[in-house]
Amino acid sequence: MSVQTIEWRDGAVVMLDQLRLPHEVVYQTYRDYRDVADAIRRMVIRGAPAIGIAAAMGIALGASQKEFGSYADLAKEVHVICEAMAKTRPTAVNLFWAIDRVKALLASLEGESVVTVQERLIQEGKTILEEDIAINRRIGEHGAQFVKDGDTILTHCNAGALATGGWGTATAVMRVAQEQGKKIHVLADETRPYLQGARLTVWELMQDNISVDLITDNMAGHFIKQGEVDLCIVGTDRTAANGDVANKIGTYMVALAAHANDVPFYVAAPTSSVDLSLASGDQIPIEERSAHEVIHIRDQGIAPANASARHAAFDVTPARYVTAIITENGVASPPYPFTLAPLVRKS
Amino acid sequence: MSVQTIEWRDGAVVMLDQLRLPHEVVYQTYRDYRDVADAIRRMVIRGAPAIGIAAAMGIALGASQKEFGSYADLAKEVHVICEAMAKTRPTAVNLFWAIDRVKALLASLEGESVVTVQERLIQEGKTILEEDIAINRRIGEHGAQFVKDGDTILTHCNAGALATGGWGTATAVMRVAQEQGKKIHVLADETRPYLQGARLTVWELMQDNISVDLITDNMAGHFIKQGEVDLCIVGTDRTAANGDVANKIGTYMVALAAHANDVPFYVAAPTSSVDLSLASGDQIPIEERSAHEVIHIRDQGIAPANASARHAAFDVTPARYVTAIITENGVASPPYPFTLAPLVRKS
Repeated sequence: MSVQTIEWRDGAVVMLDQLRLPHEVVYQTYRDYRDVADAIRRMVIRGAPAIGIAAAMGIALGASQKEFGSYADLAKEVHVICEAMAKTRPTAVNLFWAIDRVKALLASLEGESVVTVQERLIQEGKTILEEDIAINRRIGEHGAQFVKDGDTILTHCNAGALATGGWGTATAVMRVAQEQGKKIHVLADETRPYLQGARLTVWELMQDNISVDLITDNMAGHFIKQGEVDLCIVGTDRTAANGDVANKIGTYMVALAAHANDVPFYVAAPTSSVDLSLASGDQIPIEERSAHEVIHIRDQGIAPANASARHAAFDVTPARYVTAIITENGVASPPYPFTLAPLVRKS
Repeated sequence: MSVQTIEWRDGAVVMLDQLRLPHEVVYQTYRDYRDVADAIRRMVIRGAPAIGIAAAMGIALGASQKEFGSYADLAKEVHVICEAMAKTRPTAVNLFWAIDRVKALLASLEGESVVTVQERLIQEGKTILEEDIAINRRIGEHGAQFVKDGDTILTHCNAGALATGGWGTATAVMRVAQEQGKKIHVLADETRPYLQGARLTVWELMQDNISVDLITDNMAGHFIKQGEVDLCIVGTDRTAANGDVANKIGTYMVALAAHANDVPFYVAAPTSSVDLSLASGDQIPIEERSAHEVIHIRDQGIAPANASARHAAFDVTPARYVTAIITENGVASPPYPFTLAPLVRKS
């Protein structure tokens, strides 16, 4: 595994600063949970699974960074920390999944010593990281069947090792296909406004010697229509029970282009990102972010300084445009209301 | 008319340097046709109609910038200049339209004095500019019927005053609608990689106090799906006899999103941009440009320095996604093979 996104080391959380990629490779060490929450908010770390890991490790950090007189004191503080974490990135379902998992563990440890609880919370953060890597590896194995030798794969945003504990979700499919000896080529959408594709996906695929061409988001349709794309694979921040997929803004337009040209469109979705409580994508709240990020590219103004802008950070791709959803427990095909839930319940 | 793109002044061609917008408003004076050709190539001036005007004025400049002993010498030089102009932007049909028009004029003047021919070529450049402004005004009048009070219009790239002699094509529709007292709002795609939407469309609409929000290209589908867009209007570089539309990269994906959500998608097309010699868009050559422009945004690297990239500059939107084509001679509706040619032949 060539790219390490996050780890627990010497009582601290260490994260690769993704805001500085691809020009600088800098690991930051965090010793205060508030800084971890801030890093999640500022997108030092991003991608649904990675956010879940960061939140769990951030909670463990907060529970360990000072002394507590009793389980009750510690439990009270953990709930405060969980609230802070919950506010960082409201669209990422893994955030809430990780928080709930830590809370359940905490409840199960009632009566244990403070030190034991602290150790178990730290262990839980590490376990979530290890499990995530194993899950991604399995997503890759399930998805690689859809990749033929010589295929060109189009992807959007970064559903990569950098978005997870390792391997990535969409990129796990690429990595396993390459491991199987298939020659693949990737077209990576740059993914405005944050340019996760240009900055992160291209960088991490190059680390693994996977052939990749960067394109602007608006070129995806053209190359798909020209017959240059064999399949699309994207990740997801949140998928509803009916297979509607919330993912980075622009995913919907890629799906429309794939659909219009009979190119398969796959979603790599760890079951932790599937929210069976949502009947459809209409119920998924879409995070709105600052207009500044649209008017500027990395602090360089690209429009009149007093221009107005809109900034939708995510969109919802209707299930009818999704060829299959690849989870760690197997592949769901339409009709998703019947096929997705059983895979999620296996977890 | 608040925005002047190009004019003939004191024996020279004066152009607004669009590479420096929106941060600086700089007019450049050209006294050598080779510099005009270079300016077209470098996109100091861009947009199909404006390129046609610049080419015609550039030829007039070349024919006037030195002395000739005879009509034959001058004619020979004009053909050399025309060849240089033809190489600047091969996708822009107006370029060839303007060159052919100047060549026809030249042929009709055989036997006239050198000075007369020079004066007539200069006059032709000015006439093409004036005609273009009148044409755009008529496109606006024909198109404004599709805009209702309160509508939000999505546009891509800059089919604006800056792309023409004045008024613009897609923006003429907005300007006339506003003149008619309709309150409109515009969503302008930023239009990577050159950011013509962010730099030019937003700037020129702000000059005319038209309400505009900038969005990234990949947000268009989301806002269309959310019901926030009443109609789309774009320009075209070249439209085939069957109504297939070549326009700035990304136009195709906007059309797909409009089609999928039953939002009308209009193309503002001066008849000079309609090429009846092309049966379909498959015959339109797509200009490929430098990968550098995808890996960088205005010279700032956004991807690993050694990354590879693809750069398709245009795409073709199939006629089936085009609700109507608005020309200066009226509006063509499907089936375009029957409706478009009569409008073109009126010119």
